[in-house]
Amino acid sequence: MNIQPHRNQPMPVPFPPSPGKIQPLTFVLVHGAWADASFWDRVAAELRRMGHAVHSPEYPGHGGDPNTNVTHSMLSRSVADYIVSHGLRDIVLAGHSFGGTIVQKTAELVPDRLKRLVFMNAFVLKDGESASEEFPPQAQSFFEQLRASSSNDTIMLPFPFYRDAFANLASLEQARWMHERIQPEPAKPLYEKLDLKTFYKLTTPKSYLYLTEDNVMPQGQPNYGWHPHMSSRLGLFRLLKSPGDHMTFVYTHPQWIAWRLYEAGRD
Amino acid sequence: MNIQPHRNQPMPVPFPPSPGKIQPLTFVLVHGAWADASFWDRVAAELRRMGHAVHSPEYPGHGGDPNTNVTHSMLSRSVADYIVSHGLRDIVLAGHSFGGTIVQKTAELVPDRLKRLVFMNAFVLKDGESASEEFPPQAQSFFEQLRASSSNDTIMLPFPFYRDAFANLASLEQARWMHERIQPEPAKPLYEKLDLKTFYKLTTPKSYLYLTEDNVMPQGQPNYGWHPHMSSRLGLFRLLKSPGDHMTFVYTHPQWIAWRLYEAGRD
Amino acid sequence: MNIQPHRNQPMPVPFPPSPGKIQPLTFVLVHGAWADASFWDRVAAELRRMGHAVHSPEYPGHGGDPNTNVTHSMLSRSVADYIVSHGLRDIVLAGHSFGGTIVQKTAELVPDRLKRLVFMNAFVLKDGESASEEFPPQAQSFFEQLRASSSNDTIMLPFPFYRDAFANLASLEQARWMHERIQPEPAKPLYEKLDLKTFYKLTTPKSYLYLTEDNVMPQGQPNYGWHPHMSSRLGLFRLLKSPGDHMTFVYTHPQWIAWRLYEAGRD
Repeated sequence: MNIQPHRNQPMPVPFPPSPGKIQPLTFVLVHGAWADASFWDRVAAELRRMGHAVHSPEYPGHGGDPNTNVTHSMLSRSVADYIVSHGLRDIVLAGHSFGGTIVQKTAELVPDRLKRLVFMNAFVLKDGESASEEFPPQAQSFFEQLRASSSNDTIMLPFPFYRDAFANLASLEQARWMHERIQPEPAKPLYEKLDLKTFYKLTTPKSYLYLTEDNVMPQGQPNYGWHPHMSSRLGLFRLLKSPGDHMTFVYTHPQWIAWRLYEAGRD
Repeated sequence: MNIQPHRNQPMPVPFPPSPGKIQPLTFVLVHGAWADASFWDRVAAELRRMGHAVHSPEYPGHGGDPNTNVTHSMLSRSVADYIVSHGLRDIVLAGHSFGGTIVQKTAELVPDRLKRLVFMNAFVLKDGESASEEFPPQAQSFFEQLRASSSNDTIMLPFPFYRDAFANLASLEQARWMHERIQPEPAKPLYEKLDLKTFYKLTTPKSYLYLTEDNVMPQGQPNYGWHPHMSSRLGLFRLLKSPGDHMTFVYTHPQWIAWRLYEAGRD
Repeated sequence: MNIQPHRNQPMPVPFPPSPGKIQPLTFVLVHGAWADASFWDRVAAELRRMGHAVHSPEYPGHGGDPNTNVTHSMLSRSVADYIVSHGLRDIVLAGHSFGGTIVQKTAELVPDRLKRLVFMNAFVLKDGESASEEFPPQAQSFFEQLRASSSNDTIMLPFPFYRDAFANLASLEQARWMHERIQPEPAKPLYEKLDLKTFYKLTTPKSYLYLTEDNVMPQGQPNYGWHPHMSSRLGLFRLLKSPGDHMTFVYTHPQWIAWRLYEAGRD
């Protein structure tokens, strides 16, 4: 007999008591830095195709907003306002990258509207910390130089850095396409120390989706990195992993990312 | 030309000198805590379909046995007795989770009947250690509270904890189906310190199969975790990895798990 | 609706602005220890099929060369000479395992001919270090015993060790086929401390392809291992990951490895 399944081959199996049906969810997707709400367009389309309601609110200083003089509380407040004004309840609030910090603060503002928090290669800051402090010293200096060289307190990622660190799995033209669409990131919120005492009292269930080829944060370091360094701050959380770098797979593998977000968000 | 293979696509390739034939093996599969021998049913069926002989003995305090007042030596002794009474030789002795500790002690009892030991996200305790000591302090307290709240010195996992930590890749109904079938686990063997001096003198070949989305033990910690923390105690061992959480994939991906166990167990 | 994609299923997606075309590259592939240039044969064939130019020069002490009394500078010099004598420019210089150290030194010799360096589970030594120093103490003793037992200052890997540590994903016959073709490795270059000051001044772009089931180096250790321990010495680098052990996948999954090398090497 010679039934060797190929590596990584999917195994189509029935499972008791019945194959899973899709549980319709309400997603609120929060993008990160060097991105705008269109970051989620393809993933949102896939989630809607599955039957979910999906919102990806833009927040100040991003998308069409020319104001770069924003504070972190303006960002989380705007997401919370969106949730309230749209009457959203029982939501899966998911953040990518810097969006994790906005998820943390938004959760403090509208805790009774949350079903679950999902972090996708996203910051989970400790109380009193800023996002910038999660970078190793050399990266911190690099970002500070970029910040200092801007005329409006923003940070723009040079293409060679973006291409190898943020879009390592993209083709050159995919990386260029993505990079051409990003705006300089307002720096202030990245350097704000956040009071997260309330966040760490929330009992909202939490999930962490870890894309394993993301090298924006150092891997395998006790004091740095998405997972397990920051994910472990969540206490009990549901872990999922997937291939993927920091930026590319929402564009190239939206059906896959959508499915993992569903697995992260369902009951 | 545009032959971009999709990520994770299997590569069907011939290989010199000839495609691998299945080597028929004799497996003895040892389940872990919060499980009984039926844990292996689907995987065993797949292994048998490949041509292997498969045994999954029940051990005291589990399955139909109402006695919860068991000791660790009763467990390993019963597996060793099963092996001897069935005249099994040249076996691949494989343990999952707490079953790893039983594999360690059973191997001491019947070393001449073993071809290879396989650990699948299983404890590899050091000499003089108990399974409970491998959990970080917070988890230890949690399990001790659960133990203290039982009337018969057992530990039962609350569903929300089980669902996110043990069955993170399952659907809700799959997780419920699994959880409804588990019994409170006799606590004593989890807290027994095991003399493993003989185990660490054995020269039996060893393999470790690591399911990478298992978050029961902290990941990426020097002092905790299935792999590499506990696996590295095996000295030279054959490593295999696969997607999978702690409990779900034996039910949802039995052909896949069976294949990896075969790769772990073959010569 | 029931569109559950199977785990690890590839997602065939169009991507703006257009599906990636293959960028023709010139690869120079440098094999490691216990290997010769034929190590790359299948991968090279796949790369050529994609439209790339591929060179896999043999270096002294390997392949047909009976001289085992070689120095590290003879190895890197021979690769550099090959590059120059063939008039190669704008090359992707890729090394596997010990070949990483040759890539480092060759890069110092012909920096203006390089497009990018690629390390595939390859040593990235720090200045003044030898390859042997990257092994943990127990492995160092093991290799020193093997070296001491040879009559011509070489090291030969015993089959049981090779099978479980170097070829863990191979079938037994595949492992035997590979092992029968290897020669005792000249020991001296493994123990030479390399001056790498020039290497660490090079601005050549770099990539690291990490095959995740490679257990030749301890995994998850701060002071040992291919990735992130050695990879992080590259500074900014493009990370890729793939299933695979240390030796097998170039034979069993050459199309897959070729594709990942292309992803590592393209602009």
